[in-house]
Amino acid sequence: MRYDPRTFRSLTFHDALPAFREGSDTPRAYLERCLEVIEAREPVLRALVATDIEGSRQAADASADRWRAGRPLSPIDGMPVGIKDLLETRTMPTEMGCEAFRGNFPKRDNAAVAALREAGAVVLAKTVTSELGGAHPGPTTNPFDPARTPGGSSSGSAAAVAAGMLPAAIGSQVGGSIVRPAGYCGNIALKPSKGAINRGERQASSQSVNGIHANAVEDMWRMAAEIAKRAGGDPGHRGLAGPADPPPPEKPRRLLAIEGAGWSMIDDATKEAFGRLLEGVEAAGVTVLRPAADPALAALDAELMGASAICYAVIGWEGRWLYRSLADQGPDAISFRARDTLERAEAMTVADYHAALDGREAAQAAWARALETVDGALMLSCPGPAHVWSGDRPGEPPLARPTGNAVFNTPASILFAPAVSMPLMAVGGLPVGVQVMGGQGADARMTGFARWLLEAVEPAVAG
Amino acid sequence: MRYDPRTFRSLTFHDALPAFREGSDTPRAYLERCLEVIEAREPVLRALVATDIEGSRQAADASADRWRAGRPLSPIDGMPVGIKDLLETRTMPTEMGCEAFRGNFPKRDNAAVAALREAGAVVLAKTVTSELGGAHPGPTTNPFDPARTPGGSSSGSAAAVAAGMLPAAIGSQVGGSIVRPAGYCGNIALKPSKGAINRGERQASSQSVNGIHANAVEDMWRMAAEIAKRAGGDPGHRGLAGPADPPPPEKPRRLLAIEGAGWSMIDDATKEAFGRLLEGVEAAGVTVLRPAADPALAALDAELMGASAICYAVIGWEGRWLYRSLADQGPDAISFRARDTLERAEAMTVADYHAALDGREAAQAAWARALETVDGALMLSCPGPAHVWSGDRPGEPPLARPTGNAVFNTPASILFAPAVSMPLMAVGGLPVGVQVMGGQGADARMTGFARWLLEAVEPAVAG
Repeated sequence: MRYDPRTFRSLTFHDALPAFREGSDTPRAYLERCLEVIEAREPVLRALVATDIEGSRQAADASADRWRAGRPLSPIDGMPVGIKDLLETRTMPTEMGCEAFRGNFPKRDNAAVAALREAGAVVLAKTVTSELGGAHPGPTTNPFDPARTPGGSSSGSAAAVAAGMLPAAIGSQVGGSIVRPAGYCGNIALKPSKGAINRGERQASSQSVNGIHANAVEDMWRMAAEIAKRAGGDPGHRGLAGPADPPPPEKPRRLLAIEGAGWSMIDDATKEAFGRLLEGVEAAGVTVLRPAADPALAALDAELMGASAICYAVIGWEGRWLYRSLADQGPDAISFRARDTLERAEAMTVADYHAALDGREAAQAAWARALETVDGALMLSCPGPAHVWSGDRPGEPPLARPTGNAVFNTPASILFAPAVSMPLMAVGGLPVGVQVMGGQGADARMTGFARWLLEAVEPAVAG
Repeated sequence: MRYDPRTFRSLTFHDALPAFREGSDTPRAYLERCLEVIEAREPVLRALVATDIEGSRQAADASADRWRAGRPLSPIDGMPVGIKDLLETRTMPTEMGCEAFRGNFPKRDNAAVAALREAGAVVLAKTVTSELGGAHPGPTTNPFDPARTPGGSSSGSAAAVAAGMLPAAIGSQVGGSIVRPAGYCGNIALKPSKGAINRGERQASSQSVNGIHANAVEDMWRMAAEIAKRAGGDPGHRGLAGPADPPPPEKPRRLLAIEGAGWSMIDDATKEAFGRLLEGVEAAGVTVLRPAADPALAALDAELMGASAICYAVIGWEGRWLYRSLADQGPDAISFRARDTLERAEAMTVADYHAALDGREAAQAAWARALETVDGALMLSCPGPAHVWSGDRPGEPPLARPTGNAVFNTPASILFAPAVSMPLMAVGGLPVGVQVMGGQGADARMTGFARWLLEAVEPAVAG
């Protein structure tokens, strides 16, 4: 199947609500349709590590009763959701894609998962994550070509949503783990501002966030808002700001177009499509500025050229003690890729970490100055269409990043910036996402921008 | 034994270093002496939940080799240490004083524990914590009277250090869990600035810190500094600022004396002793100001009257999802006190939590203004001497806070302030600590103040 963002539509939830209200559809029937898609596609997609079908059927029936009685708990009552397998769930194991956590089943709900249940959502599946959210991939394939990567680390969340197994899923990002797979799979996805959605007991990174994969802006926003309404933000943070209802489409006045450090790595067709997309944005009445247009924008662009180095230094340092403990549990406890990560991290000193924090803060300051000139920035979500990758093969040198390079994602990660990925491009019959990124706390505004862009701008198709 | 701070001395480590250097003592011999004290006192003290004696002997022998070769890894090479049983250690289980974690043994080292091993410290024991660091106590008794509480939640760390089982131990504080038990047991203890010592994977509170219990300022500071040198601060924080060597004694110019919300709860002998101690501080040449002396000091004092309410709201909200998941594991998975905590937390809304964060920030702003007038504050570490408590008894109404009230500790906790507890008082033959508290990041300065106060001021003994 060649993907075309002008015509492709996958499973959504918000548009089922009228039928739930009038009784012509029920959350249980909705769930059963999801299970059918799972049965049909999971053997090739391999997006799920665990399902709770019986528990989900009971939860969906209870939700159906509430809809019938006219008393749903929230607008996501009855929504089947997937949970990235880094987050704990009390009904399914949490193995984190890591041999050291095989069979790990602490029977605890992460705060965001608990909030989803309180809102009536049906916690149907754990979705594949690359190992510990890092470089080593799980078995998931791209929903538009099983020979290609779905991206990572939120591989299963992105693929399952794109394939219509689930209308929405939780992903998480510390480097590029929400936006890149969303870009490769054609999701609409929110990588929120740092602290916006409570990570519960998973606070050991200064940069990671929980976010949402969906096929509609409405589902994406409501899932985020319903979690934040109940579980708030990270400890010490105020959490997601914005209305309970999806923010209305909002036309940005001026957007910065960033090519970034990844531009030299991508193919000409992707470059051409991005150029045409920007022309479409301008034709719709938005002023699109390039970094050269203004010294503050040029300064930001220069800072972001080092985003990946900063990001990997932060991630490596902050994870090194956990990685060391796991590595010490045995030769197969973590992958060779995780051992490479550990080795680099253990070569760092406190001073190296401080330098990375300095770089992160300098980039954040440059972004704050740039936002005096523009309302946000547009950037590719991923380095072109998903590449071919079907596993490590004996005798061949292993790819360092089988789920793709995070070079287009590390900027939003180190800026603590909200970013919404939109399925606005196709290259060679595969999705290529585009993200709009804003100031810290501007999650609702970026969501409004994304709605407007999705409505007002024709997707760019190339190759 | 009646405790007298003028004469009481317990086990220290820094003063053994010359003997290690010249070969007249070794870390192995030092360890064996600790084991003898443990054997003699543990049956009554009950401060330890696990020991790693064989591993410790090996580590101490390796340390002895390094000292012999003149190449110790650090000034705490060979120091036997205890680790509060909330922190993971790869050599001993981590049960957190909680039935739901009975047998929990993830074989991982918390970042601070890993750093201690890298510095050559001998990780000898896990020390008793009240359940999950909350209100429900473990079995530990006060080293000066087994009918009394040692305080909590760092009960075992405080008691083991005071009893001379170990020269130093890690404790942690989110409300009052380092400074209060240090006060009841006569420790010297550092509750550092928020973020100063890496909590590793234990980041799910916006307020908790890892700190140090010791019997000498030198050991306290070096242990903190050697951890921070290797594992830094919490993710995103710069970590403990200051020299590797213990800061020299520094005479404060002006200190604020805070009676605080706990004053009305304490006995007259403690009030008298605190008054006499302040006279001694003034006699040594420090200007001691009362809140009424200055509007900024009065404003701070007023803000801190609500510190406990703010503190418990923050703790309750941030822990509610973990507590709920544990409570759901079975009727005995958590104590009735933890269920009470959970019930209060689940009555909160996101707005209540935001109000607590507002209150915390207002108090921090008031503290910053007060620090334009004073160099720090002096306050009791605990509400008088440890009270009698020997366990819940059938038919008697249970105490809400068997390890004592944190009313003298919640101020430093919500201010993210460094505080050093000093054994400067005795009341009725029992220790009563006094703490000096400073601005965020002033850990080294408060340590210098503490050294000066311990040297220049005669302890106050009453009752």
